[in-house]
Amino acid sequence: MIIVMKPGASASQVERVCQFVREMKLKENVIVGTERTVIACVGDERYKDTGVLELAEGVERVVPILAPYKMSSREAKLERSQISLIKNNPATTLGGKRVGVIAGPCSVESRAQILEVAHAVKQAGAIGLRGGAFKPRSSPYSFQGMGIEGLKYLAEAREQTGLAIVTEVMSIEQLDACCEYADVLQIGARNMQNFNLLSACGERRKPVLLKRGMSATLEEFMLAAEYILARGNPDVILCERGIRTFEEYVRNTLPLAIVPELQRVSHLPVVTDPSHGTGKSHLVPAMCKASVAAGADGLIIEAHSDPEHAMTDGAQSVTPEVLAQIVRDCRRVAVAVDRDM
Amino acid sequence: MIIVMKPGASASQVERVCQFVREMKLKENVIVGTERTVIACVGDERYKDTGVLELAEGVERVVPILAPYKMSSREAKLERSQISLIKNNPATTLGGKRVGVIAGPCSVESRAQILEVAHAVKQAGAIGLRGGAFKPRSSPYSFQGMGIEGLKYLAEAREQTGLAIVTEVMSIEQLDACCEYADVLQIGARNMQNFNLLSACGERRKPVLLKRGMSATLEEFMLAAEYILARGNPDVILCERGIRTFEEYVRNTLPLAIVPELQRVSHLPVVTDPSHGTGKSHLVPAMCKASVAAGADGLIIEAHSDPEHAMTDGAQSVTPEVLAQIVRDCRRVAVAVDRDM
Amino acid sequence: MIIVMKPGASASQVERVCQFVREMKLKENVIVGTERTVIACVGDERYKDTGVLELAEGVERVVPILAPYKMSSREAKLERSQISLIKNNPATTLGGKRVGVIAGPCSVESRAQILEVAHAVKQAGAIGLRGGAFKPRSSPYSFQGMGIEGLKYLAEAREQTGLAIVTEVMSIEQLDACCEYADVLQIGARNMQNFNLLSACGERRKPVLLKRGMSATLEEFMLAAEYILARGNPDVILCERGIRTFEEYVRNTLPLAIVPELQRVSHLPVVTDPSHGTGKSHLVPAMCKASVAAGADGLIIEAHSDPEHAMTDGAQSVTPEVLAQIVRDCRRVAVAVDRDM
Amino acid sequence: MIIVMKPGASASQVERVCQFVREMKLKENVIVGTERTVIACVGDERYKDTGVLELAEGVERVVPILAPYKMSSREAKLERSQISLIKNNPATTLGGKRVGVIAGPCSVESRAQILEVAHAVKQAGAIGLRGGAFKPRSSPYSFQGMGIEGLKYLAEAREQTGLAIVTEVMSIEQLDACCEYADVLQIGARNMQNFNLLSACGERRKPVLLKRGMSATLEEFMLAAEYILARGNPDVILCERGIRTFEEYVRNTLPLAIVPELQRVSHLPVVTDPSHGTGKSHLVPAMCKASVAAGADGLIIEAHSDPEHAMTDGAQSVTPEVLAQIVRDCRRVAVAVDRDM
Repeated sequence: MIIVMKPGASASQVERVCQFVREMKLKENVIVGTERTVIACVGDERYKDTGVLELAEGVERVVPILAPYKMSSREAKLERSQISLIKNNPATTLGGKRVGVIAGPCSVESRAQILEVAHAVKQAGAIGLRGGAFKPRSSPYSFQGMGIEGLKYLAEAREQTGLAIVTEVMSIEQLDACCEYADVLQIGARNMQNFNLLSACGERRKPVLLKRGMSATLEEFMLAAEYILARGNPDVILCERGIRTFEEYVRNTLPLAIVPELQRVSHLPVVTDPSHGTGKSHLVPAMCKASVAAGADGLIIEAHSDPEHAMTDGAQSVTPEVLAQIVRDCRRVAVAVDRDM
Repeated sequence: MIIVMKPGASASQVERVCQFVREMKLKENVIVGTERTVIACVGDERYKDTGVLELAEGVERVVPILAPYKMSSREAKLERSQISLIKNNPATTLGGKRVGVIAGPCSVESRAQILEVAHAVKQAGAIGLRGGAFKPRSSPYSFQGMGIEGLKYLAEAREQTGLAIVTEVMSIEQLDACCEYADVLQIGARNMQNFNLLSACGERRKPVLLKRGMSATLEEFMLAAEYILARGNPDVILCERGIRTFEEYVRNTLPLAIVPELQRVSHLPVVTDPSHGTGKSHLVPAMCKASVAAGADGLIIEAHSDPEHAMTDGAQSVTPEVLAQIVRDCRRVAVAVDRDM
Repeated sequence: MIIVMKPGASASQVERVCQFVREMKLKENVIVGTERTVIACVGDERYKDTGVLELAEGVERVVPILAPYKMSSREAKLERSQISLIKNNPATTLGGKRVGVIAGPCSVESRAQILEVAHAVKQAGAIGLRGGAFKPRSSPYSFQGMGIEGLKYLAEAREQTGLAIVTEVMSIEQLDACCEYADVLQIGARNMQNFNLLSACGERRKPVLLKRGMSATLEEFMLAAEYILARGNPDVILCERGIRTFEEYVRNTLPLAIVPELQRVSHLPVVTDPSHGTGKSHLVPAMCKASVAAGADGLIIEAHSDPEHAMTDGAQSVTPEVLAQIVRDCRRVAVAVDRDM
Repeated sequence: MIIVMKPGASASQVERVCQFVREMKLKENVIVGTERTVIACVGDERYKDTGVLELAEGVERVVPILAPYKMSSREAKLERSQISLIKNNPATTLGGKRVGVIAGPCSVESRAQILEVAHAVKQAGAIGLRGGAFKPRSSPYSFQGMGIEGLKYLAEAREQTGLAIVTEVMSIEQLDACCEYADVLQIGARNMQNFNLLSACGERRKPVLLKRGMSATLEEFMLAAEYILARGNPDVILCERGIRTFEEYVRNTLPLAIVPELQRVSHLPVVTDPSHGTGKSHLVPAMCKASVAAGADGLIIEAHSDPEHAMTDGAQSVTPEVLAQIVRDCRRVAVAVDRDM
């Protein structure tokens, strides 16, 4: 941590700040500059609330040096983590050379619907099937999902196809059921800072696909992962699903530079969600290819056999035919960046 | 809903869209323009997922006409709602002529701390005491609150001062305890779209102070309130706490125009949180005055007897002395806009 | 400047960075921490391109300490600047106890229109008349302003009312004409970083009303002012006119906390533009009052005698009657914050 | 245009709006819905200021139907435009199958520097050389470019390499010189709405590389292009260079979905600038590949032989060796998406 004093800060103000620093069990180095005095502090500031120092008299601002996350960082683990969606099933691994595709409808709507789309998704080349049984909806009047019945259909789809099941868990009460029927627990963007839910997922033994909140900073995203890791679950997959900006031709802005940046600061696999990341089905194919080229370890894509009649998120879903084409096209891009698909 | 067709859309494409519209139990009006055909639909579109129509061939875009919220809207209830923080205690009412102040520390840290600050807050002229017993923290390594012990100290503070207790509830499991000890359930910005929690609060009989998510639209904010109202709890207080933007001199940007806009579209009381809304204690006094001038029904302010040693959010807390000055200054502004304080 | 080295940076990497620092005529202090080495540099870094140091091997990031602006800062001049819109006319001064109002139509549309509105603006209590003769319009097909003819009508309005004339200058070629007929040169948000224009205004002897760009940081805003000051023109008025965010109920978000923050870091007067700052006439009155309560030194308001027929920006203009009411209401708020109006 | 009336709007309010519509030479269709009356207007609204209708009594909001740009739209010209950077030199064409690379330093710093980098850029496979002679700098104290001397060195670099010269023009006064020495006029992000400059470029016969403003909407970007096209210059290249968001690990967020969207709504070639689009040299290679995969027609990349000593923008520049590797890698991606490089 670096503490920058105001111009003209008095010696006693500097000394008072140094006392605070020592109270925090850090060691101070006072450097008197031409216009400002700065105090460089040595020690592990990571778990201190250093912001309060900004209140001390004579302090202009405080600059943290250490990132506040640890277990999710590259420093904690140099080699990249590989995570199998289904335990001990290497065909479902993310984070290695192979770029994995997870696809499926926004919501499970019926047994027939999910089984039909599961086979199509399998045939297209995916390793996982996504589908919501519990749906977070902006409006209380919208369809809220089929619940446990939906989970059972998803499990049946796995029986028939071998696809790993990825489904969203919205609250702690749903965790038991989701762990029973699904392979991967998805935390939605709106719950990225639902810390109780994160902690509860940290105590399970299922991989967690964690979506970035739509206005979360990279640091907050890493700290959300840290909540899960710190409770003992090492299998967190980071998912970029778009951020909220002023742009109007998309529902969200998909900031792909976060893919190489996350891979630089973290060992966890990184996937993107071009469906939510644009909100427009006609933009999904291009953004899938761009994601793979940027180095993504996987894609999560909304697919529906009859998007015009989808009960949720139809506007960003693609048909199984388009999905198959996307996978074919992305495979070529994957090879061009020395990956597989 | 208005459906705008692409230039050159064929008659059969228009007819197919009209069929979709009729399937939704709406009535269509086709208007052939000089460059575009538009289809104006009559009927209650509020609960339909109209976005899927964008997928139909020949459709360029879909424009909803009706806002998707109902019970929270001004159309549902013309007169402004008045909500007493403590049931049947008019001295704690928000939404009337009087601008109410809720103040207190970010976290309950000890019995002595909360009792001391409660008396100071009372003396400054507040009607409510805020204080977190369960703390949502970005980092799993930060102080997470005192839990039920903290709630008990808050209840004791109410005994001594008569202040209404406002405390954050982070998950359904905490609801019983919060309802037992506190008067007002606060939903934090990070949980604004934790729909299960919203619904659960809708089934209680305590007022809910609902904070806007840091990148939520006004419509999403109103729909979050709708979740609570739709379950039977009419007492929702809307709280603006700042949005995330590119600005760097603040932690959040406090967009005060939302105060008159919310009061235009909704009957619910509107309060602002200049502490989180700026993140900098030196900006809090000016933004409190500005909030009152903009028409806010209340203020929620972080106050701590020793901000430099606060366990959380010290950088945005003010001392009791500054709080007292803020209330005195805001009272003058309140009178200048024909309010009271 | 503080240079943070990567974990594990070698001694020779640290030494190489120190050489760079010395090349920049700065003095280095190497501090070896528990997890990172940091290099604190002493000297005036303000005019160096310190970003390049991020490229040196072993460097993680570079943290500047000194703000890059100087003449516009509070450090350069402790007392607040007072600027008369009309030279030597104290009744038109901004930056003192009195909050000044500048009002008028977006565009000069005809002699009759501008004279009529000028008298109404004068009667409402304004000190300045705004009106565009040269109009920056998003579309090349929109009305582009009356040009020099419009300037002449503005000058005539000053003759009749004594109001100071504030008008936008879009390019260097228009400077002579604007200086001849107007009192204050307005730089629009879209031109805030039109550096040639800023420099040219710095060589004139007219006050400049500089609008913040709609996504400019506070630092960029201060540096834009610095361009004008550095060329010898000390009379810069800072104007906040709203930033671009994801919010949809307004055209722009008016971030009022910048008012006290600019007054903290700079000696220049600060005015707000609630008309562009919201884009909605029904939100203008509340945001005018909020601006005054936040401490603004002035307001600039779009007013038109017949907004429904205004050629530009009608949707955010208020009528003379509403303007008069705004001034009456704001005067009460001004008094409540120990100002005048 | 669709006009949505407030609930309970009276018949006379509707009639008054219809009169306004007829004054605008449009034809109205009144549709009475269950909760709202809407008025659908037929005719070319494109050049009307329809926003003023929001002021009429009883009007809730106004929804434009037609995009306000015309010549830049796909409707005006179905086939994609191909633009040669050097007239009649097909090896420098953008917009066809081949993805073109433009590279070079941020600023021309000396004759030796620009000639050295030009040869390296040529060898890497680029078709154009970028380099600033006139530099828009945030700070008045920063290096402002070599001016005409720099232009002459650029022209000499073209003589030696055959590369097309792309250079930024900041003001009308610089146009003659830039047209004399350079092949392509670059309009920087800060000048995207410098309408006088756009119009002046529209009267020249050099291709214009137009950068999107950092908070410009797609519509504003298209209208800026329209300014140039409307004056008779058909050769506009659209360049995405990143937008300003809350993200902190980059200087700008590069929103690649705009590439396919611009190609959908416009016939103009689209290039991206991953250097400014991230501001971090270590993110440039991944974002170059992602841009090509997303369908970009070209890349503009900052390259410098000695980035650590670059006078401007060193932190986002790559070395010639890295540039050569980027081009090799991107060529593979280009082939994978059926393009060339």
